[in-house]
Amino acid sequence: MSDPSAAMPRDVMFQKMALIGVGLIGSSISHAARRAGLVGDIVGCSASPETRAKAESLGLVSKAYDNVADAVAGADLVLLCTPVGAYAKIAEQMGPHLAPGAIVSDVGSVKASVVRDVVPYIPAGVHFIAGHPIAGTEQSGPEAGFAELFDGRWCILTPEADADRLAVARLESFWTKLGSHVELMTPEHHDLVLAITSHVPHLIAYNIVNTAAHLERVTDSEVIKFSAGGFRDFTRIAASDPIMWRDVFLNNREAVLEMLGRFSEDLVTLQRAIRFGDGETLERLFGESRAIRRGIIQAGQDTPSPDFGRRPSPPKTS
Amino acid sequence: MSDPSAAMPRDVMFQKMALIGVGLIGSSISHAARRAGLVGDIVGCSASPETRAKAESLGLVSKAYDNVADAVAGADLVLLCTPVGAYAKIAEQMGPHLAPGAIVSDVGSVKASVVRDVVPYIPAGVHFIAGHPIAGTEQSGPEAGFAELFDGRWCILTPEADADRLAVARLESFWTKLGSHVELMTPEHHDLVLAITSHVPHLIAYNIVNTAAHLERVTDSEVIKFSAGGFRDFTRIAASDPIMWRDVFLNNREAVLEMLGRFSEDLVTLQRAIRFGDGETLERLFGESRAIRRGIIQAGQDTPSPDFGRRPSPPKTS
Repeated sequence: MSDPSAAMPRDVMFQKMALIGVGLIGSSISHAARRAGLVGDIVGCSASPETRAKAESLGLVSKAYDNVADAVAGADLVLLCTPVGAYAKIAEQMGPHLAPGAIVSDVGSVKASVVRDVVPYIPAGVHFIAGHPIAGTEQSGPEAGFAELFDGRWCILTPEADADRLAVARLESFWTKLGSHVELMTPEHHDLVLAITSHVPHLIAYNIVNTAAHLERVTDSEVIKFSAGGFRDFTRIAASDPIMWRDVFLNNREAVLEMLGRFSEDLVTLQRAIRFGDGETLERLFGESRAIRRGIIQAGQDTPSPDFGRRPSPPKTS
Repeated sequence: MSDPSAAMPRDVMFQKMALIGVGLIGSSISHAARRAGLVGDIVGCSASPETRAKAESLGLVSKAYDNVADAVAGADLVLLCTPVGAYAKIAEQMGPHLAPGAIVSDVGSVKASVVRDVVPYIPAGVHFIAGHPIAGTEQSGPEAGFAELFDGRWCILTPEADADRLAVARLESFWTKLGSHVELMTPEHHDLVLAITSHVPHLIAYNIVNTAAHLERVTDSEVIKFSAGGFRDFTRIAASDPIMWRDVFLNNREAVLEMLGRFSEDLVTLQRAIRFGDGETLERLFGESRAIRRGIIQAGQDTPSPDFGRRPSPPKTS
């Protein structure tokens, strides 16, 4: 690839951005930051030789390192983009090498545990502000990224009460220029909100796909053929990265268990209504959920096209 | 609209098709049957004056009746396309008016109760063969239909053991020409398969949307804004017609409760793994579900495009 610092020498927000992890989110940040001309150089870091080679050959980074110390050296923006279970070790390794005045942030799907794991290793004069772009697809890896991923989506930042206000403002501006809206909240509230809007949905999706795959009286072939009845919608997020999601659940236990408890209670109400033939309750509860979908579409967070705008597949010939 | 019998005088499979109910499925059958030139005249029936007016003005039917007796008179194909809770009354009303040799079928999402409700009213010499196209969108009404809805999707027929083989073959051929693959099974097996591939997914989707809408510590506005984390996938099918789904659950109680029991047991396993920090179990179970998604895509039942091929929404300006 060409030297990016030659192409955009002046107006950049950050001279050197280090992406620790170059998967779906890291690679999308690279694309979106290049699109907006936000950074001078972009370097990456990955433990995987394949990911490093891919990240360089795709031009996502000028250089991909196998160790965080080299990657963060001289970077004024460092973004952790690995599964959150790896953060503590990464923070310990990078701490001594962070440049004074650097902003360190992340994209992890949980926030309280991230603050707990990372903050102890951040030296004085470096600004750690945890973050989470609410965007993604079911795909993984450096090839999966694209510049539009964050357009119109929300990015939550969870700065500590004593965080440097200018650093927070800079990071807010960075995400806005990547295409996102930004909202600030505490790490604890983030974890509660995401438990219901993301973590429990993923858990339920994984669960029903596994339930369906292990039935005795219905075959996998039948599940697959007749999935257009609704089941296939669940399989998209159930195809997400297992390691990333393992780490999410291990690190947001309390909030997930609270929301899962509420979900299960409500499900028992529906179950009883079915058992006792209570059509009124079913109709009332089914009718209430349309308002939320309407709100999501009005807020630009989903498409109004029927079936997500999926095109019908061509008829199978077999 | 122009006179359809003038346009296709000879090669049609049926001279007159009566659609009892002209919502998403009924209107899509009209479009698809016209596309393939399968029928001469199409008439409809609806209790709603608005639906009748719409069905005629859209050209879905040459005439929309307010009573089934007139609609089925002289029809050699009658398709019930209303919520299944209305079938018994419709069957009672249409029984004496069905033409000798006519094929009567339906598109309901449950089959054992349909056979129970309809068969007693079918006169000798009329062929009742229950059916269910596994296709749909979250939208309802005569405007929602389109000719491609059944392309590449499966249609299940559940003929009784003593059904007329020629009539079954004709109905199979009809659905094939509408764009579908056809599979035969018993009503009871259909209800079990659909419980897991459609009914329980809808129940869970309705449930989590309602859970999210009634939390004290997370606002509806937050649920909507941050829905791109996974939640929004569930809201599509939770926007489906409440009456239709009420009737499905009232009429497939045993199979739904069985599958819901399996789902809940499996969910408890995941819940315990989260509570006790068992990352190995989580990772293993999350990893297993990718195979099913792959199978669905290979079978042409979903798109391989990330995010269902949804286009990113334009950035909101507010």
